[in-house]
Amino acid sequence: MKKLRLMRKTDKADESVVFFDVDDTLLDTSTFAETARKAAIELMVDNGLPLDKDEAYYLLKDIIKEKGSNYDRHFNVLTKTVLGKEDPMLVALGMITYHNVKFALLRPFPKTDDTLIYLKSQGYRLAVISNGLTIKQWEKLVRLNIYPFFDEVITSEEVGFSKPSPKIYQEALRRMKGDPDKCVMIGNKFKEDALGAVNAGMSAILVNSNVTEREKIRIKKEKLDIKIIEDIGQVNRVL
Amino acid sequence: MKKLRLMRKTDKADESVVFFDVDDTLLDTSTFAETARKAAIELMVDNGLPLDKDEAYYLLKDIIKEKGSNYDRHFNVLTKTVLGKEDPMLVALGMITYHNVKFALLRPFPKTDDTLIYLKSQGYRLAVISNGLTIKQWEKLVRLNIYPFFDEVITSEEVGFSKPSPKIYQEALRRMKGDPDKCVMIGNKFKEDALGAVNAGMSAILVNSNVTEREKIRIKKEKLDIKIIEDIGQVNRVL
Repeated sequence: MKKLRLMRKTDKADESVVFFDVDDTLLDTSTFAETARKAAIELMVDNGLPLDKDEAYYLLKDIIKEKGSNYDRHFNVLTKTVLGKEDPMLVALGMITYHNVKFALLRPFPKTDDTLIYLKSQGYRLAVISNGLTIKQWEKLVRLNIYPFFDEVITSEEVGFSKPSPKIYQEALRRMKGDPDKCVMIGNKFKEDALGAVNAGMSAILVNSNVTEREKIRIKKEKLDIKIIEDIGQVNRVL
Repeated sequence: MKKLRLMRKTDKADESVVFFDVDDTLLDTSTFAETARKAAIELMVDNGLPLDKDEAYYLLKDIIKEKGSNYDRHFNVLTKTVLGKEDPMLVALGMITYHNVKFALLRPFPKTDDTLIYLKSQGYRLAVISNGLTIKQWEKLVRLNIYPFFDEVITSEEVGFSKPSPKIYQEALRRMKGDPDKCVMIGNKFKEDALGAVNAGMSAILVNSNVTEREKIRIKKEKLDIKIIEDIGQVNRVL
C-alpha cells in the first residue's frame, strides 16, 4: 500500500498532526458498553425491576438511542418508564454495575499502544477529535494510560459543532497549528471521520469501519484521499 | 445503659423505625475522602498542575468548603483557579484517581453489618435520612452491599429541607409510616441528627460524635432523649 503524503516531523515548526477518533477507533467501546448494559439490567431485574431481562435491555437501548449516549440519566428514565416514577435504588444499582463492568473491560484495541509509539517515533504530534464530552474522552485516555501521547482532545462539546462539520476539523487544526495538507484523521466512520476530514482538506484513514461498497466506489470515483485498513495495528503500513 | 423506649416490631402494622445517617455513621466517609483527595492532587501535580502538593490540597479543600461536598466540579474549579482556564486532562486525572481511591477504600465501620442484622432480627424497619444526593447515598449502600437492609433513603435533595429541619424528619416518618414515639435516629452530628430528630418527636443516638461538654450538659438539663455511644457496634446496648 502506498504511504500517505504526510511528512515526518522534523522540528517544532512542523505542521503534521495525526488526529484520532476515540470510540471504536482506539478502544472497543461498543462491545464493552453492551456487556456492561446487560450486567446492569440483570441486577436491576433481580432487584425488582418488573420486566424480563430482554425486554428491559431493549427498552434501555431505545432510551439510549432516543436520549443519545452522552446523556447521563438513562437508568433514571428506564425506572420512570417502567414504574411511573424513578427508583433511586435501582438507578444506583444499574449505574454502579454499568460503570464497574465498563471500566473492568475497558482496553485499547490490540496494537493501539504499539501504533501510538510508532507514530511518536516518526515525529508526529497526536490529538483527538471526538463527538463526545471532553472530560469523558480524557477519562478514557487516562484510564487506558495512553493520555501522554495526546497533546489535545478537541470535542463537539467544546467546539459547538460535531463531526463531520468542517468547523470542528478547522478548530482542531487551529489548536494544533496543523497544516491540513500534512494532517490525517483516523476513525471508524465514513461520514463523520473520513468525509469530514477530507472536506476540511485533510487525509483520512478508516479503521474498523463498516464502509459499504457504494462508499468504496465513491472514494475511487471522486478520488477521495481516504485509505481503508483493517484496524489501528495497520497504521504503520500507510503512515 | 437503659434500653430506649422503642418497641419491637410485632406485625406489619408496627410503627417502629430505626433511621440512620450515612456519612461517618455507617461508613468512614471523612477518612477515605481525605486519602482520595490527596491521591488525586498528587497525580495532578505530577502531571503539570503548577503548585506544590500541600498548596494544591489546601486549595482543593477551600473549594470543597465553598462549593459544598455535593458539588461535582471541584477539580474543574481547581484547574481554572490555578491556570486561568479549565484543563480537562487534569480534571479527568483528578476525578478518576479520586473515585478509584474512594471506592477502593469504601468500607462500613466495623460492626455495621452486625448491627444491621441485629436490628432486623429485633424486627425493626430501617431507613436512611441524609443531607446528601439520593442516588449518591443509594450508591454507597449498594457498593457496601448493605442496601437490602433499608426500605427507604430520604434525602434533603428530594424533600427540599435539610437536617436538622423537622420537615425532613416528618417526611421520613410519613414515608415509613413511623410513629415518632417509636422511632429513633442514629447519626454522628449533635445538631443535624440528634437535635433534629428530637425536635420531630423521635429519640436519637449519637455515634462517632464530637459532642461537646456544653452539648452534654444541655442534653442533661433539657432532658433530651439523646443517647451517646461510641460507635455503631454499641447500638445493641441501647436498642
